[in-house]
Amino acid sequence: MEKHKHATMTMERQFEIIEGSVTTPQGFRASGLHCGLKKTSRNDIGAIVCDVPAVAAAVYTTNAFQAAPLAVTRASLAAEGKLRAVLVNSGNANACTGKQGEADANRMRSAFAEQLGVAPHYVAVASTGVIGEPLKMDCIERGIAELPAGLTAVGEGAEQFAQAILTTDLVKKEACAVVTIDGKPVTIAGSAKGSGMIHPNMATMLGFVTTDAVIEQEVLAALLKRTTDATFNMITVDGDTSTNDMLLAMASGLAGHETLQESHSDWSAFAEAFQYVCEQLAKAIARDGEGATKLIEVRIAGAASNEAASAIAKSIVGSSLVKSAVFGADANWGRVIAAIGYSGQQVNVDTVDIQVGPIAVLSQSTPVAFDEEEALAYLKGDTVMFHVNLHMGTGAATAWGCDLTYDYVRINAAYRT
Amino acid sequence: MEKHKHATMTMERQFEIIEGSVTTPQGFRASGLHCGLKKTSRNDIGAIVCDVPAVAAAVYTTNAFQAAPLAVTRASLAAEGKLRAVLVNSGNANACTGKQGEADANRMRSAFAEQLGVAPHYVAVASTGVIGEPLKMDCIERGIAELPAGLTAVGEGAEQFAQAILTTDLVKKEACAVVTIDGKPVTIAGSAKGSGMIHPNMATMLGFVTTDAVIEQEVLAALLKRTTDATFNMITVDGDTSTNDMLLAMASGLAGHETLQESHSDWSAFAEAFQYVCEQLAKAIARDGEGATKLIEVRIAGAASNEAASAIAKSIVGSSLVKSAVFGADANWGRVIAAIGYSGQQVNVDTVDIQVGPIAVLSQSTPVAFDEEEALAYLKGDTVMFHVNLHMGTGAATAWGCDLTYDYVRINAAYRT
Repeated sequence: MEKHKHATMTMERQFEIIEGSVTTPQGFRASGLHCGLKKTSRNDIGAIVCDVPAVAAAVYTTNAFQAAPLAVTRASLAAEGKLRAVLVNSGNANACTGKQGEADANRMRSAFAEQLGVAPHYVAVASTGVIGEPLKMDCIERGIAELPAGLTAVGEGAEQFAQAILTTDLVKKEACAVVTIDGKPVTIAGSAKGSGMIHPNMATMLGFVTTDAVIEQEVLAALLKRTTDATFNMITVDGDTSTNDMLLAMASGLAGHETLQESHSDWSAFAEAFQYVCEQLAKAIARDGEGATKLIEVRIAGAASNEAASAIAKSIVGSSLVKSAVFGADANWGRVIAAIGYSGQQVNVDTVDIQVGPIAVLSQSTPVAFDEEEALAYLKGDTVMFHVNLHMGTGAATAWGCDLTYDYVRINAAYRT
Repeated sequence: MEKHKHATMTMERQFEIIEGSVTTPQGFRASGLHCGLKKTSRNDIGAIVCDVPAVAAAVYTTNAFQAAPLAVTRASLAAEGKLRAVLVNSGNANACTGKQGEADANRMRSAFAEQLGVAPHYVAVASTGVIGEPLKMDCIERGIAELPAGLTAVGEGAEQFAQAILTTDLVKKEACAVVTIDGKPVTIAGSAKGSGMIHPNMATMLGFVTTDAVIEQEVLAALLKRTTDATFNMITVDGDTSTNDMLLAMASGLAGHETLQESHSDWSAFAEAFQYVCEQLAKAIARDGEGATKLIEVRIAGAASNEAASAIAKSIVGSSLVKSAVFGADANWGRVIAAIGYSGQQVNVDTVDIQVGPIAVLSQSTPVAFDEEEALAYLKGDTVMFHVNLHMGTGAATAWGCDLTYDYVRINAAYRT
């Protein structure tokens, strides 16, 4: 069987990957601390602040029930399309909390704006944690009072922020890239959290991307939407879509190059670096899914369209049976084919190839004898890839997820109590 | 909060529930035995045989990849719409087995037809088990040779059959009802298997319904389709839809009443009894889902339409987070509201009521203080009901599922090996 081209193709990067955080781009500072929302001593409130009004754009959960902070952030962005800060708490989602929740989200915004001495519409807010319980506003207000003192533009503030947005996540998630625009270095960085209720169309995920690029609001918003569809919307942990998801991008404009447009000669490099940061964060969320021991990557080629490839990739990576088999290091490709079959997409049932990592297991829909020991060794690694070629067209897509484990059940059987 | 009417409403039954099996209706015999497909000594091949050509109808999986036996059964039904027998094996699904699989499924049919001395198109076949491995035809042929000797019209044969169709199921699933048509007793009975890869639109489920009713093929087919949509298509174990699902109904016509039509004065009683048998089997499959410790029943009222209610019910009962919370006896209604919100259906976000069993937890989308101890006691029971009223219209639906447990993961991490 011909090996899939996408498995071996390498693309020359137009950007540089560096160690960095949301405060690496010029103009950003961050901080985080424990204010009392979480029962442990882990950080539960944090903020990113920009020295200048940053061009900003966001995408939100598609869940019909949207938590109170989302409406407040929408209102802030609608005013001018610029932000000076985003304030985030974990431990409580402020979702399904009625009028009180709306008042609390507004109060978060105005109190932090007052603290910073900026207009309220320059502040965005986000919350993640338990649904349906009122926010402890005394904790929030204490946090707001103490946050500004910790704001730093070096690693420490960003580290505290990255910790403050986590819930059941085990590790913080950061990514950073530098790209050259008009001969000047432009930095893009991001911080995100997962880790349950993660499913395409935004999840229980919060993501914050900062950059010092000079870019117009509409152009940033369009790039953010397109990039989200190829990255954050291609991950799933459990098929549940949360009430609180938000991805927010802020551009300080301090890099001082010509304003970015799609017609700019360095646009593709910028878009690629932007996508790299988002993809790294998305994959980190999938890998750190609740209870996960492995990252699963599903690459579809030869589909009738990119949309079909995307639906098939998500069907496979969302299958509880595929996820359980990966946990058990079982090369059970029958579950992969079943998930392709119920994806609702057009499939030629006679021309499907499947590889588990480098191992061909199905060729032209016919089982290929393979070495079970070799498959077991591959499946015991911490990243498991499935390559599917449908031989129908040129549609392609990649999706990411994680295995389904005892710990997923343990964590979610007793999350609230 | 007004208690949901459907929680207390009782309907007078037009039929009688009795102990019985697929051989209780007149004209049917069954048998089952171990032929060697399963590594254990559990039965792995079985058959139901009718003394006369029975009017027959079937519904099949919606998975694009359909196992070889489905095509063979379709061909049998297409010939005359009547069957003398159905032959079922477990331990191997004969799916994704290419040309050899088709030949094997055809051979199963012709060998059993020969054994019974009937035309091949009077025999249906079904398989369930591992995907992608060739059928051991020597085992199958030995089984076919021995099955006729065990055929009995009393409980023993049906018991052996019910055992023979199981895979990871823990218990056999049977239901039986008697209804009076033209003053004569008519019996409807069924036997089914689950228990993973169970999701609306047919699942890894096989179901066999027998009756001695006199009914035309088109009428039986329409009733079967409609009943499936309200019963088997309203259950989910893990959201995976199998390649092998089939529900087959056979009517011997030996009860000797006037031919049933929708215009018959006893039609509603018959349809109700038929639905009862299917619903009992569907609920038994959900309750015996892989690793399950509880049956979850979700009842939606006040939706914009029955279709919307159905989609919302399935969204809730399919949520890994809701399922994990039920396993942990956690009254986490926030996950219920999240699942309503991502169902893709129109929802008024301000008018939702939720009850966990008898306990109101959300009224008009606002949390209701409830006794956590009382909720815990309720959730520790073996059946957990969620009542949701959307207060938007008159749409209603009920769906069934099971909790997500450590054992689900254990079973599916190492099913094939």
